[in-house]
Amino acid sequence: MNIGILGSGIVAKTIAGRLDGLGHAVKLGTRDVKATLGRNEPDMAGGPPLRTWLESHPRVTLATQAEAAAHGELVINALSGVGALPGLASVARELAGKILVDISNPLDFSKGMPPSLTVANTDSLGEQIQRELPDTKVVKTLNTVNAFLMVDPRQLAGGDHTMIVCGNDAAAKAAVTRLLTDFGWKDVIDLGDLTNARGTEMYVVLWARLFGGLGTPMFNVKIVR
Amino acid sequence: MNIGILGSGIVAKTIAGRLDGLGHAVKLGTRDVKATLGRNEPDMAGGPPLRTWLESHPRVTLATQAEAAAHGELVINALSGVGALPGLASVARELAGKILVDISNPLDFSKGMPPSLTVANTDSLGEQIQRELPDTKVVKTLNTVNAFLMVDPRQLAGGDHTMIVCGNDAAAKAAVTRLLTDFGWKDVIDLGDLTNARGTEMYVVLWARLFGGLGTPMFNVKIVR
Repeated sequence: MNIGILGSGIVAKTIAGRLDGLGHAVKLGTRDVKATLGRNEPDMAGGPPLRTWLESHPRVTLATQAEAAAHGELVINALSGVGALPGLASVARELAGKILVDISNPLDFSKGMPPSLTVANTDSLGEQIQRELPDTKVVKTLNTVNAFLMVDPRQLAGGDHTMIVCGNDAAAKAAVTRLLTDFGWKDVIDLGDLTNARGTEMYVVLWARLFGGLGTPMFNVKIVR
Repeated sequence: MNIGILGSGIVAKTIAGRLDGLGHAVKLGTRDVKATLGRNEPDMAGGPPLRTWLESHPRVTLATQAEAAAHGELVINALSGVGALPGLASVARELAGKILVDISNPLDFSKGMPPSLTVANTDSLGEQIQRELPDTKVVKTLNTVNAFLMVDPRQLAGGDHTMIVCGNDAAAKAAVTRLLTDFGWKDVIDLGDLTNARGTEMYVVLWARLFGGLGTPMFNVKIVR
């Protein structure tokens, strides 16, 4: 499948590598291609800068956000929480009619660590994005784990933990769930419409505190029932 | 141990029954003893009204909130979210120097179901309670599961799931953790100070939506790490 990924950070790169390995045609979209290729520092996990990474993933291409959005039959929002709405609004035309997998969280680091959220409780970033893109099928998922677990949940307890999806379009959710299954997710709960993004985004406040308490981001919840 | 429980609803009753069974001396506190004893309708789970329940638990006594707070070496806040702050403020003197186990959630049903929260993100009900009761050691826990699992986690998957505690006083958390162990909790995570109540209370928005999606309140998260 042709898949566009909006973002050029560690999350975008991690997902791109996995999708490429699964045989998809992946195009990463960044605001300024030249500036992104000019970065030489390692990423937050000590991985190579994107330019070097791209050399070892020759089938993955880097382009503008509009080009990546136009390329994808399915597009993944791997922008930061604060960057998501303006970034997505700028490619609304290219995203019309398509599935947008929203993995972002409305994290607010302005008040220090651990983060709070820029929107919560009676609204969510997922819903804000859906309102900004009324012709796009927004599916919220993967925002509850770190990038490495997103694409390879079997790294933790053989994959015996839970991923939640929500969104307003059943067919879009089914397509995204197939992708999750390809990643290795075995327990996927479809919670219903996109208002449920309030729940999964608010959980991330607990996630951030568990990250601090456990000292590792390699954890997830299993919904035991 | 002498334990006071503030509240007379199904949660208060369920915890009282379990603590009584474990050999503790339990006093329930309600605003209006006569009115509470006058209720004849079954509780939300179809259980007997409190008057009938008390007849089958002769060691558990019903008293005013002040009497229950005065009775307890340890006191449990089983008031509703909206009732918690005024109820606790009225017994601040009786609670001074004691451990208060806060199991309440700031649920706001005024905007319909599923509920939102009256406080979230940059504050929490647990912290509001601690500010209201500066001389009391507030420990937040148990607010992430329903009453039946609170006191008997082995009802679900043999108890293979997680409970979180947080609070500003280490000795108080240790005492409450011993109580949790007596209830059957095997995986208890101490997340740190009471600001972590933001995380566990915000998770309850996801809990309410999982309750809707799963069709049962008999579930919990296991923090897989």
